[in-house]
Amino acid sequence: MKILTFSHYKDVDEERIKDFFAIVIDLLRATSVMIWAISNGAKKIVPVESIEEAKLLKSLNEDVLLGGERGGVLIQGFDLDNSPLSYKKEIIFGRTIVMTTTNGTRALKKAAMAKRIFLGSFINARKTAEYIFKEVLKDDIQKITIVCAGTEEKFTLEDILCAGYFVDIFKTYLESFEVDDLSLASYELYKKFENDPHEILKYSYHYNRLKQLGFEKDLEFCLKKDFVDTICEFKNLVVEKVLVDV
Amino acid sequence: MKILTFSHYKDVDEERIKDFFAIVIDLLRATSVMIWAISNGAKKIVPVESIEEAKLLKSLNEDVLLGGERGGVLIQGFDLDNSPLSYKKEIIFGRTIVMTTTNGTRALKKAAMAKRIFLGSFINARKTAEYIFKEVLKDDIQKITIVCAGTEEKFTLEDILCAGYFVDIFKTYLESFEVDDLSLASYELYKKFENDPHEILKYSYHYNRLKQLGFEKDLEFCLKKDFVDTICEFKNLVVEKVLVDV
Repeated sequence: MKILTFSHYKDVDEERIKDFFAIVIDLLRATSVMIWAISNGAKKIVPVESIEEAKLLKSLNEDVLLGGERGGVLIQGFDLDNSPLSYKKEIIFGRTIVMTTTNGTRALKKAAMAKRIFLGSFINARKTAEYIFKEVLKDDIQKITIVCAGTEEKFTLEDILCAGYFVDIFKTYLESFEVDDLSLASYELYKKFENDPHEILKYSYHYNRLKQLGFEKDLEFCLKKDFVDTICEFKNLVVEKVLVDV
Repeated sequence: MKILTFSHYKDVDEERIKDFFAIVIDLLRATSVMIWAISNGAKKIVPVESIEEAKLLKSLNEDVLLGGERGGVLIQGFDLDNSPLSYKKEIIFGRTIVMTTTNGTRALKKAAMAKRIFLGSFINARKTAEYIFKEVLKDDIQKITIVCAGTEEKFTLEDILCAGYFVDIFKTYLESFEVDDLSLASYELYKKFENDPHEILKYSYHYNRLKQLGFEKDLEFCLKKDFVDTICEFKNLVVEKVLVDV
């Protein structure tokens, strides 16, 4: 098994990941929000790149909810911001949500060439990794890529720590596997701050920006591990819950 | 003071680094080789991107030596490969060397927009950082960028560890400074493997490739810290020794 990590969506080599399973991570907060929304009963999420596109879809179907952010905050005229805490069951259950965010949406689109694309976050990493591991064995896929969204086309520490957690979980399943340098670095960084990622993230850029914007509870939420069982897949331009056989 | 790190040369935002001092690192082995060659008395080094360009310069002046690598090994018709151990005093003293390497040369050119450009390696990091620190204060420059060459346009662990060492040294001079996420990650990774970088590099890509090619001694050489006092600057397309007032 081979694991390849990209530090931001712009770095993704679309041709190279064609025969990979992909995990897309925008920990703070796009993929965490989407996973939480689906877990809370949203029917599906349609990630789009622009505000215009989101509004166009709403004009075609008034029932959809609009969610996302620009500069970290609610977009004027939208129903929901980018805070997972806004995606309450009573608001979103059974609904289709059109979302636009700065980095996460673009990362999903950049990963679109991969064989299958899953959403990753600390909140559901273990279940997601376990599912992916079973599926790659079934389909005889030998390659997994972790696509970190990054921030403003730069390496972003919280995404990398979450990538490292995925590597850590995969490691427990495999006797030997091949990782690229960034997967290895992510793993080592994750292990160093495994017990308290806030300890290093408090010096990092995006985490601090969200803190300044008043989203401290979101930071706590998105860094908590594995309290969600829902696995989310991006397929035919839509994020939906994966139905798992039991 | 602000420190910004790039994980590979292609990522460098040339416009953004205009008012920065830059440190370019291709630890294995381009910048280590160039620093060692200058320290051993080479007059100057002319980094060029292609073999053709190197041969053209030789045709204009037969006295120059040609050095570098493709696929890690000696280029046909060249005088020197990319191993620091080849750059012995008796061969290179007083000579001009035209060099072409896969990543290091390109990284130097990508950093060319910076205010001043220095070559970095473990072998001379402390002296280089000390000099840069004095100069930035003198010129009232508030920004330093560390440009890792990377390997094949990817994040490369040995360059990142060396970047982390530079951050560690700068940290000792400054009460507070601002680092981007990659500088912070480099620092934490460096500190984790400070006493034995081989411990993690033995799992990394480029290090292993050089080991397989038989360059184990080069790996030992390039990972040894601060046995060289020479500071090298890339200026007007040429690498030369910085003359320091004492």
